Amino acid sequence: MTDLSQLSNKQFVLRQRPSGLPKESDWQQVKTAIKAPEKGKVLVAVTFISVDPAMRSWMNEGKSYMEAISIGDVMRAAGAGLVLQSEDARFSVGDAVLGAFGVQEFATMDANDLTKIDISNVPATAYMGALGTPGFTAYFGLLEIGKLKFGDTVLVSGAAGAVGSVVGQIAKIKGCRVVGIAGGAEKCAHLVNNLGFDAAVDYKQSDARAQLSKACPEGVDVYFDNVGGEVLDLALGRIRRGARIVVCGAVSQYNNVARGSGPKNYMSLLMNRATMEGFVIFDYEKRYPEALHALRGWLAAGWIKSYEDVLEGIDTFPTALQRMFEGGNTGKMLIKLPATAGLAATAK
Amino acid sequence: MTDLSQLSNKQFVLRQRPSGLPKESDWQQVKTAIKAPEKGKVLVAVTFISVDPAMRSWMNEGKSYMEAISIGDVMRAAGAGLVLQSEDARFSVGDAVLGAFGVQEFATMDANDLTKIDISNVPATAYMGALGTPGFTAYFGLLEIGKLKFGDTVLVSGAAGAVGSVVGQIAKIKGCRVVGIAGGAEKCAHLVNNLGFDAAVDYKQSDARAQLSKACPEGVDVYFDNVGGEVLDLALGRIRRGARIVVCGAVSQYNNVARGSGPKNYMSLLMNRATMEGFVIFDYEKRYPEALHALRGWLAAGWIKSYEDVLEGIDTFPTALQRMFEGGNTGKMLIKLPATAGLAATAK
Repeated sequence: MTDLSQLSNKQFVLRQRPSGLPKESDWQQVKTAIKAPEKGKVLVAVTFISVDPAMRSWMNEGKSYMEAISIGDVMRAAGAGLVLQSEDARFSVGDAVLGAFGVQEFATMDANDLTKIDISNVPATAYMGALGTPGFTAYFGLLEIGKLKFGDTVLVSGAAGAVGSVVGQIAKIKGCRVVGIAGGAEKCAHLVNNLGFDAAVDYKQSDARAQLSKACPEGVDVYFDNVGGEVLDLALGRIRRGARIVVCGAVSQYNNVARGSGPKNYMSLLMNRATMEGFVIFDYEKRYPEALHALRGWLAAGWIKSYEDVLEGIDTFPTALQRMFEGGNTGKMLIKLPATAGLAATAK
Repeated sequence: MTDLSQLSNKQFVLRQRPSGLPKESDWQQVKTAIKAPEKGKVLVAVTFISVDPAMRSWMNEGKSYMEAISIGDVMRAAGAGLVLQSEDARFSVGDAVLGAFGVQEFATMDANDLTKIDISNVPATAYMGALGTPGFTAYFGLLEIGKLKFGDTVLVSGAAGAVGSVVGQIAKIKGCRVVGIAGGAEKCAHLVNNLGFDAAVDYKQSDARAQLSKACPEGVDVYFDNVGGEVLDLALGRIRRGARIVVCGAVSQYNNVARGSGPKNYMSLLMNRATMEGFVIFDYEKRYPEALHALRGWLAAGWIKSYEDVLEGIDTFPTALQRMFEGGNTGKMLIKLPATAGLAATAK
């Protein structure tokens, strides 16, 4: 058994609520001692930290769809890890687990809040991407809220990101024409060449509207919006009769100090008899097994590919978060904690 | 038979496309001769001109959900009238009819474009209000798009207007709590005292948000939006889980020279798993008889009251249109053409 007194736990603790894009000084980095878990608890060595757009809203005062983080708390984050010590019969040392570990190297968790994962055939990272919350978000958002039908033209923004990339790939599986919106030629090429999208629109180019018209000559049936802002207006200008707009996120707006201007083009909903609907993935929790079953099958068949953008070491956290908000990542943004991962492996 | 050579037809012809709120000089008033109708046509003496928010969009360049009016054309308008001469077996002199007569005193219509109405028990004006397009808009918007359920809290803007007043009264019939948004104490009193609304919010008061919170303590299930702009944002801030927002119109925005800012609060759709959906009433044309049947029954029973705001004489047209856009009307905005009405009566 690992000698815990030899270890310390590096944590990112919320120091202040950020204004705009979070910066390194919004957190305090502290090192704490690690205690053996009590009965019913499990000590986890974190191997991957999931970096997600929702983190920004957790840092604000007041409740969004989840409680805010308090000043002085460890920054909230989902992650993957390995069990280091267990005081619960359901978990053994070395088990691969998922949980809301936070931005820290070790987490002492209530065993009820852990999910065991099978990493014999699938890498742990996939459980934070295509087989995790981003994948479930894509699955239910597209099929339930978007009411996807065979032959639809599907447009998705943030298309190279964790959710968007799965949205597009599911839509291809379902027999749709798929167009992705992303920033930069490299990401656009990735969508078409690696993910099988039919076309891509680079929203950073001045001719984005013309690109979109060309890519969707008959208009858009389902628009899956991850970004909000001007891209949402662009898409609203291209929807066709009976379109469904899935409001999944607005990553372009989360760091605005002033509230964004809202979709100027929303009356396109009237003209086109269209629907704009929001959802929160946690409402579908009871149906996660259904999504996991489908997504795992598609991943195994190679019909869905899971891409990750991985930085190494917990110190990269502020950089990773900024990178995601600035659209620098291709695929799911993750932080790998190599030292502790190695430690956990030797602890078996 | 009326001697047509004794009559002339005063018409409002579109002179130029307006910038902002239409002004009198945007039309040219002309007098034309009246010819006897050809075979299959009917000459109608217009008795009422319906003044509608949609008129503004018809005056713009380019197609909205209907073709634009061309410069030099008679201003488009729905109306009621009496048959003065008929060259179609289905219509007789003196018949009360509805049609898209335009802003003029006489209209020569294809008989296929006329609808005979029964004005023995119901005034002709009701066919342009509760028993006409505004009533149908309220009926299908609320029941189909709003998916109204017994016990819902229903909020409607433009509540003292032609559509809004029927929305609120249908919702009361269906067993809902009904709150109306209107401008000014007089209209608010009208909603509660004459139309049976449970509460009213005066959006012109600085405490509108507090009024809304008090009127809808548990939030809003259905918001029927006729006005857009800041009122839409106010309402978005008060919706509850699973709310349905019916995008019927945006009368506050139709005269904006610059495009409006769009609903800043639209991410409330995500938080509240809510839907915002647009519709165009013409899509329901085949089901108008259903709505007419229901609305006629409610009107006869006194469960729905039809209010009109009537100006007299065709010269009042620019004033009537401005009055409606400035929220000066309570009930359906109409123009009565008394001279021709009298003439038509004598023509029998």
